[in-house]
Amino acid sequence: MSLSPTPRSTITRLRERARSAQGDLYAVLDAGLVCHLGLVRDGAPVVLPTGYGRIDDTVYVHGSTGAGYLRIADGAPICLTVTHLDGVVYARSVFHHSMNYRSAVVHGTARAVTDPAERLAALRAIVEQLSPGSWEHARQPTPRELAATAVFGIDLAEASVKVRTGPPGDDEEDIATGGRWAGVLPVRTVFGAPEPCPTLPPVDVPAPEHVGAR
Amino acid sequence: MSLSPTPRSTITRLRERARSAQGDLYAVLDAGLVCHLGLVRDGAPVVLPTGYGRIDDTVYVHGSTGAGYLRIADGAPICLTVTHLDGVVYARSVFHHSMNYRSAVVHGTARAVTDPAERLAALRAIVEQLSPGSWEHARQPTPRELAATAVFGIDLAEASVKVRTGPPGDDEEDIATGGRWAGVLPVRTVFGAPEPCPTLPPVDVPAPEHVGAR
Repeated sequence: MSLSPTPRSTITRLRERARSAQGDLYAVLDAGLVCHLGLVRDGAPVVLPTGYGRIDDTVYVHGSTGAGYLRIADGAPICLTVTHLDGVVYARSVFHHSMNYRSAVVHGTARAVTDPAERLAALRAIVEQLSPGSWEHARQPTPRELAATAVFGIDLAEASVKVRTGPPGDDEEDIATGGRWAGVLPVRTVFGAPEPCPTLPPVDVPAPEHVGAR
Repeated sequence: MSLSPTPRSTITRLRERARSAQGDLYAVLDAGLVCHLGLVRDGAPVVLPTGYGRIDDTVYVHGSTGAGYLRIADGAPICLTVTHLDGVVYARSVFHHSMNYRSAVVHGTARAVTDPAERLAALRAIVEQLSPGSWEHARQPTPRELAATAVFGIDLAEASVKVRTGPPGDDEEDIATGGRWAGVLPVRTVFGAPEPCPTLPPVDVPAPEHVGAR
């Protein structure tokens, strides 16, 4: 299945970096931990980092019902962007310096999720995106915790995916001139060793598989 | 010097995570490689990842003069957000799962930079933010390359910084109950080994210090 571009989800700049398969969109979204959520408040954009989760063709975000930015979200136009930086691209010219990356930009309308079953599934997807295995391991939400949590869904119907890979695109003259290094410095996101909570009795529970083996 | 909050740069949710020193803002911005830039297009938000650089109290972004999103930027309200994910916070309850992070949100107006000296300084700052040492090592921009590049400055007068560190904030009852792991899985961004450009003669130029020792 392929993404159906609309004017705002059609990539006009560096088209060769555009990806058009639904699977590419899923892959970029599913590999992320943080998205950047854009809203319009009093005519100005606001961009905030937050966690998210995906179920089929809906991406979910959540927050406290007390969070100001979520109070304006229901029915509002929204943009959700996930970016992975994969490398710094060093060229012979400063002009051709670049980044290798994968990014997904989702344009849509925030829909307040009120159905209890969908809310629970969305929260599970958000927790599992950040910390796979946690939904089973940790204590489930109470009615009071659920009441304090706002959940929004955004349809993936209108989205674009952009990917850059590979070496720099230097000009022929600069390549011929020589004498300058060019290439890619890979960038990776890695996990360190788990740091147990100080309130955890030392011998009570070791870091479980879903944390320690990540 | 401290940040002077305006209504939109005042953190109302989880105030204990707010930082108010100018130095905190600089530190978050200076440690980043990618920002997420928010603009309003036809009433809807657009959030795009891009490089950036800072000089004193201005943060700069650039792009091709052919890029659609930059054509709408001059004089427009803009939001520039930089986020560092430092850890996944595993709590005993799914409700208290969180992230450790540092984020800066800059609200402002995009100013098209036209002065040649400021443009060059801004481009240098952007290149050096992504790849320190490259401005000296690589070929400088030609007049034609400069003409193809749009540069925008955003004043740092209106910005907020938010930082979460430390272990999860579990409820006392969950701590007392025991049996569940809690703690932080650190997240780090690391560089891999430099990958030389295939067009580089193998013995011509080794990866220079500013790349290899990063």
